This record gives sequence, structure tokens and C-alpha cells, in this order.
Amino acid sequence: MYSIATETDVQDMARGAVLLGSGGGGDPYVGELFLRHQLSEGRQARIVKASELADDAFVVSIAGVGAPTVLIEHLVSTNTLLRLLEASETFYGRKIDALISAEIGGANSMFPLSLGALAGIPVIDGDGMGRAFPHLEMTTFSVYGCAATPAVLMDDSGNVAHVRTTSDRVAEDMVRSICASLGSMIYGSFYPMSGRQAKQLAVHDTITHTLEIGRRIRRARESQLDPVDGILEFLDAPQVGRHAREIFRGRIVDVVHETRDGWHWGRVMINSGKGDEPEFSIEIQNEYLVARHSGRTVTIVPDLIAVLDAESAEPLTAEMLSYGQRVRVIGYSAAPIMRRPEGLLVFGPRLFGIDEDFRGVEDLVPQRLSPR
Amino acid sequence: MYSIATETDVQDMARGAVLLGSGGGGDPYVGELFLRHQLSEGRQARIVKASELADDAFVVSIAGVGAPTVLIEHLVSTNTLLRLLEASETFYGRKIDALISAEIGGANSMFPLSLGALAGIPVIDGDGMGRAFPHLEMTTFSVYGCAATPAVLMDDSGNVAHVRTTSDRVAEDMVRSICASLGSMIYGSFYPMSGRQAKQLAVHDTITHTLEIGRRIRRARESQLDPVDGILEFLDAPQVGRHAREIFRGRIVDVVHETRDGWHWGRVMINSGKGDEPEFSIEIQNEYLVARHSGRTVTIVPDLIAVLDAESAEPLTAEMLSYGQRVRVIGYSAAPIMRRPEGLLVFGPRLFGIDEDFRGVEDLVPQRLSPR
Repeated sequence: MYSIATETDVQDMARGAVLLGSGGGGDPYVGELFLRHQLSEGRQARIVKASELADDAFVVSIAGVGAPTVLIEHLVSTNTLLRLLEASETFYGRKIDALISAEIGGANSMFPLSLGALAGIPVIDGDGMGRAFPHLEMTTFSVYGCAATPAVLMDDSGNVAHVRTTSDRVAEDMVRSICASLGSMIYGSFYPMSGRQAKQLAVHDTITHTLEIGRRIRRARESQLDPVDGILEFLDAPQVGRHAREIFRGRIVDVVHETRDGWHWGRVMINSGKGDEPEFSIEIQNEYLVARHSGRTVTIVPDLIAVLDAESAEPLTAEMLSYGQRVRVIGYSAAPIMRRPEGLLVFGPRLFGIDEDFRGVEDLVPQRLSPR
Repeated sequence: MYSIATETDVQDMARGAVLLGSGGGGDPYVGELFLRHQLSEGRQARIVKASELADDAFVVSIAGVGAPTVLIEHLVSTNTLLRLLEASETFYGRKIDALISAEIGGANSMFPLSLGALAGIPVIDGDGMGRAFPHLEMTTFSVYGCAATPAVLMDDSGNVAHVRTTSDRVAEDMVRSICASLGSMIYGSFYPMSGRQAKQLAVHDTITHTLEIGRRIRRARESQLDPVDGILEFLDAPQVGRHAREIFRGRIVDVVHETRDGWHWGRVMINSGKGDEPEFSIEIQNEYLVARHSGRTVTIVPDLIAVLDAESAEPLTAEMLSYGQRVRVIGYSAAPIMRRPEGLLVFGPRLFGIDEDFRGVEDLVPQRLSPR
């Protein structure tokens, strides 16, 4: 158990959360501001391992649902989160013992911590994907038997919905529809689960990962070390089944963004400078989904793709990419629990319309790039 | 108090409900089949006056929400309505003493009666508009202080939502969104109210009206009398503030239908045969909204417009209109409670984008047409 108690912690964590967002998940900036405000008032976000919980503890996910672009303009209020907590405990008929993030990548890393700090409820060091994904059914919780509903939804104005569905795919459609009808930003409690389920179904230690990634970026800046080296050294951990590679360095020469059906679609082309034609592409559908080098796939969903500013090592969401940026790209294997066949049926490449089988980044790119 | 116990009652009622639908509200055919099935099993739908209820009785509206075209292809199941009743009593924490229709015009006349017959719950002789309207906030309940939510929504597959909103306009958006996400047909309980509210806020006696309209059409057919005369004789009741006029007779020479944003839009042009140009038009936006004769408004929302087949006096919904049909058109004043300023702010002409003040049909058409 430890606490997130300083502004530096929050900044580190937010930066790590953007990296794990694999281009999506929204900018955690609003949540970061909110959490920093809690800390400045003397509150702390207490982080616990799932293994510290009783098997019969009651755990829910707190999440914001909406378009990232709306979130950026949106100020979450203390009242909304506290009212959500109260409405959830009433609806479920139980005191909530711990919170868990459904999606550590991006903005939804922050809301459980904010409410946890505000209400004195511990937050589990883990989440439901170890990255960002656009749908409610795309979590290890959902894949391995803990449904997203019954769920409680709420907006800032006091509109409330309780939802109970026969599948998480239907839940996704309903929640997204309700979100659209309420001005595109709502907060909810999802995936009510036992402590035992949290232990078995979560992608563990991901809050700690965000903190460590952020720290390494910060320290590299302070010491003039290569920040990508420091990140890879941490992420590449074959002993626990995780693999990380730097898969490209270059300059963005084309980036296409399109917002359609409430989603962000796009493609970015990157050139190494060794020729006129860009050799490297990343397909975007809210998140970075597939990276290809000279037409050959080098990282593919659910494995993670991180794009970092080459100078500052700042992790960049898809919205932040722009022509002329110099970037470095990391491929990072998803957690082993994410790569099982049951998972690939829900968030593998074909679910995003990519006609390719999943292969891990460690197979696609056996060796690291040689250092420059 | 009386009961709807025979197939003839149900047929009469359904026909009257289509007339009061003012072109919209959906075809009650599916609900009619369902209600007839209940009666064939020996059940009855018991109709009570609101005045017979205790002031502290608990009343809700049962309604189907969805596109009329979907409803026609959709079979409502006994299980769905019974599960809705059970879920509603659990959610509201009260036994439901009586049901009321929100919308007597069209399909939603039938669902409260079906559930009433099935579960042995009386149905109030009245509704929230005395016609059909496309939005939840367009009811006397909503206008005079009984909100549409808290509401319980359910589909045939077991998906459930509870909704509580800060306004019925938001409720409308949310419910419509949920409906779309669940395949475009859901059932719900809305407008939870006391017996006292039912007495004060309802448009009264509208089930009796549907029965009487249907009977007059049936009897006119049996006796070769003019059916429109029989209907007008009943509807035109200045002593209770209701006025009815036959406003046109002719042949449909043009009809435009368009489904856009889930709504039915259109216009029908009718020619009397006295010249080449059609003199009469009706604008459609789910319901018939405004009828004009030689460009002059003769009936306008919330007053009702009914289009009847000239031979059979069958009331026709907007979907049923087709080129070449010979029709007779009735203008019918809305109930006085519908014409108050508070009501016109919610369902007057301007709410449908018509840049005209409301004027009652009795002002616009002081005299009846002379009989042919």
C-alpha cells in the first residue's frame, strides 16, 4: 500500500497514463487538475494491491464516458463524483470498499483516484486492460465474466440512469447513446465485482507502472539521459511476459484526422529521413491500432503503441500529432491476460476491422533497434 | 366503472384510437391482437374514472416507445409487460393501483389495457393528451407538474434502464437514445403520479371516446348511414368545450413521405374535384399538424385532424395515405386543458416549427360544411 500525495506523483502518473493510452483514452489533464486539487487540500489517494482485499470486498469501476475532445473542455465537479458514489452505494445496496480503473490509459486513470482521495476509498493498483480501448466490453473484467452492468450513470446536471443489460456489447451501445443524449460527457460506476474477482480479472500493478514511466521520463529530462532507454529498460520485462521495443524514429510527414460516428479515425505517416517516402505508418481508431514498417506489421492491437516527442519524451495522444513533429515510437506487449484467445476475440485486430491475426511485438520485432 | 371484454369492444376502441391519433401514434394493431388474446383467455380490462381513485393511489403510465414502423413488425410478449410491472413496482417501491395511458391516440392506447387485463390492474379512463404526440414532455402530466421520470425502460431481451432526469425534454432525448440503442422498440413506465394528480392532470374519458367513435363507425357501416355525421354528432360538444367540423372532402393527388432522424415527415395534397389544382394540404410530422384550405389554416396543432376513408370511414394514419384515395377530413378541437397557454408553450404550433399562433378550429371554421 502506498499513497499518491504529491503534485509530482500526479504529474508522473498522468504522463505514464498517456503512454499506456496507446494514443487514446483522452488527455488526463482535467482529472489531473482535479486530483491535484484534492491533494492540495490534504487528501491522499491510497493505492492497494488487489491481493490486500478481502475476497468478499465490494469493488466498482468509476469512469468518465464521452468524447475526449469534450472532456478537455469539461470540468468535473466534486459534487458529481460524490453524488455518483452515493447513488451507486444506494443502487447496489452495498458500501463500496475499493475502486478500480477500467482503463488506466488516459483520462480514466484519474477519476477513481480523484473520488478515492475525496471519499477516502482505496484504489486498486490495476485496471481492466492496461491500456485504453473504446468499448465497455473490451476489458479483462468483461471477457472473463464480470459484466459492465448493473451500472449507474450520471451527468453534471443531476440526470441519472441505471442500466442492466444482457451483454456488455448492448451496454456499450446504451451507455454511448445516453452519453450522446446528455451532451457527450457522463460519469458512471461499472463492473461491480468482488475482491476475489478483482484479484483474478485485473491487469495488475498498472498504477505503479504509470508512476514509474512518468518518473523515468522526468528523471531522464533532469539528467540528460536518453528517456526512451529508461522507459524500455522498465517496460521490457520478459520474466513477467512483457516486451518492449523502440520500433521507429522519424519525422511526421502526414497525419489525417477524422471524427466520424463519435470516434476519432486517422493515420500518421513517419519518415526516417533516409529517403523521400515515409516508411512507417500507424493506423488510428481512437487508439493507435497497428504500426507498419515498409508495409510489414511491427506492432498490432492489443499490444500497445506509444508515440513520444523525440526531444522531451512526452507521450503523445493521437490528437496531439502534427506535421513535422520528430517522434520515437515504442511497441509494448499487452499483459499476458490480454493476449489469451478469449481476449483476442473481443479486442484482437479483427474486432477493429484489421484483417490480420495477432502476433506479439516480441515475435514481430525480435531485436531492439541499435542505439544511435 | 366498466370492462372491455369483447373483441368488438377492442376493435371499436382501436379504430377510435387511430382517429384520435391525428395521423400518428402508430397502428394499434399489435396491441389490439395482444389485448384480444387476453380477453380470449377470460381476462377483462377494467376501466375506472380517475374520480373513483383514492387521492393517494399510485398510478403510472405504461407505454411503448419506438418507431411505428418497427412496432408493426414487433410482437410484444406477455413476459415483457409482466416483467416491466414487477421491475416498476420494485423500482418505485410501491404497488401500482392503476394504469393510465400517456397517449390515447394510436398504439399506446392498448398497452395499459393489455397489462391491466393481464395483471388485474384497473386502467383510468383518460390519458395525457387526448391524441398522439411524439415527445414525452408533450403531455398534460408533464406540463402541469408530473414529470415523465423516474421511469423504468425495458426491451424484450431483458435489457433494463432506470432513468431520472432534471427535465422531460432531457428524458425524451435519453429515452429516445436508449430506444435506438436497443433496436428501436422498448416499453416503459412513466409519469408516476398520485390518484389526486391523475384527477387533476389527465384529459378525461378518452377511452370511452375511442369506444364511442369506433362504435359509431361500425354502426354507420351496418346501417348505411353517413359515418362522418355520426362521428361529428358525438365529437361536436360545445357544452364541454369540444368542437368538430368536417373540413374537407376529396381525393389525394399527392403524398410525400420521408423518414428522417427517426421521424416521419410528409405532406398530403387533396383535390375536391372542382378544379385541377388541389385546394387542401396537410403537413405531417409524425402526426397531422396543420390543415390548410386554399392556403388558409383551418385546423392547427394541438387541435386534431382526422383523415377517414370516404367509403368505409376507416381512420387513416399518415403511413396509410396513398395516391388516389378518396377521403374526408375532420378538424377536432383539443380538450380545453390542452389549449391553455402553458400547454401551447409545449405543444403549440411553434414547437413544431410552424410560424403561426394557435387558433381553435371553431374560430377557423365557424360553420360545418353543408351536407352533400
